[in-house]
Amino acid sequence: MTTQTEKIILGIDPGTTIMGFGLIKTYKNQMEFIQLNELQLQKYPDHYLKLRLIFERTIELIDTHHPDEIAIEAPFYGKNVQSMLKLGRAQGVAMAAGLSRQIPITEYSPKKIKMAITGNGNASKEQVARMLQNLLKLKALPKNLDSTDGLAAAVCHFYNSGSIQQEKSYSGWAAFVKQNEKRIHKK
Amino acid sequence: MTTQTEKIILGIDPGTTIMGFGLIKTYKNQMEFIQLNELQLQKYPDHYLKLRLIFERTIELIDTHHPDEIAIEAPFYGKNVQSMLKLGRAQGVAMAAGLSRQIPITEYSPKKIKMAITGNGNASKEQVARMLQNLLKLKALPKNLDSTDGLAAAVCHFYNSGSIQQEKSYSGWAAFVKQNEKRIHKK
Repeated sequence: MTTQTEKIILGIDPGTTIMGFGLIKTYKNQMEFIQLNELQLQKYPDHYLKLRLIFERTIELIDTHHPDEIAIEAPFYGKNVQSMLKLGRAQGVAMAAGLSRQIPITEYSPKKIKMAITGNGNASKEQVARMLQNLLKLKALPKNLDSTDGLAAAVCHFYNSGSIQQEKSYSGWAAFVKQNEKRIHKK
Repeated sequence: MTTQTEKIILGIDPGTTIMGFGLIKTYKNQMEFIQLNELQLQKYPDHYLKLRLIFERTIELIDTHHPDEIAIEAPFYGKNVQSMLKLGRAQGVAMAAGLSRQIPITEYSPKKIKMAITGNGNASKEQVARMLQNLLKLKALPKNLDSTDGLAAAVCHFYNSGSIQQEKSYSGWAAFVKQNEKRIHKK
């Protein structure tokens, strides 16, 4: 549980080969690193098993860290309809985990996340990772930089949530939706 | 709860404008109609709210009727990547509901469902609906025939599950996956 002014943000990048996730605690204008990790999915041939693992890990993260908000990296364009269907399913199960726990979800495009963190929507993965390392005082970066995408989404959400902090009165999904109808769409 | 030889099948067609669903009880080679209904989604402008409603309705159906298996109508082709992403999300949240309750899921393409019910993979919606009416002794068909797609998926699964009925020993998802690695992929 967090105090009224503290907030825990869970960032997720749900893919079908890897799910990157990160957690930060924010307090007013400061943020503190909690966790950065990845769920490797490429070794599982079964598509349902992958979806199940994404769902279960997200639920586990929610029940362990009690995030106040969830940020999801959600690309809106892909190579073909098949890969977009699979990506949509991966996003869907992660979202279902958040929805089932009544946690507000905001999605951000990869470009928006890069822009928020580096000031450049076309920044490289290395540039984003190095900036994250500086911002959050990370001792080291993971070998696979893909796993930083979830954490990057959380930090992006923190930078974009200035106006959210002014509204403290909502409780639960219904009230949140009502008060944030404009904001809840993809950014 | 069903007896060892009885089985309840929940069929779902999760879309972003309508979710059709149906339930049948099967016993050896016979099937009995339980329910046919739809969840209207077009009136909700918010994409997350739609996903939440699909997830919640599926959980509610599972917890009320305790289906042994879930069949999902899953088109694999669509007009564009945007619509496939949305469809994937809708499928993903419905699947997450089943996965969270450890219920085996099988997906069928629209063509496979039409083929199983009418013997013609290109049958019209009216032909499928009329055949369903005959097979399940339905007194009437719903105004919106789209809502029969979920029920059709359940009946298709019944016709395709002959071999599943011979294997009674699995319990839970892990064992099911192990014993059905080949079968659990899309049909």
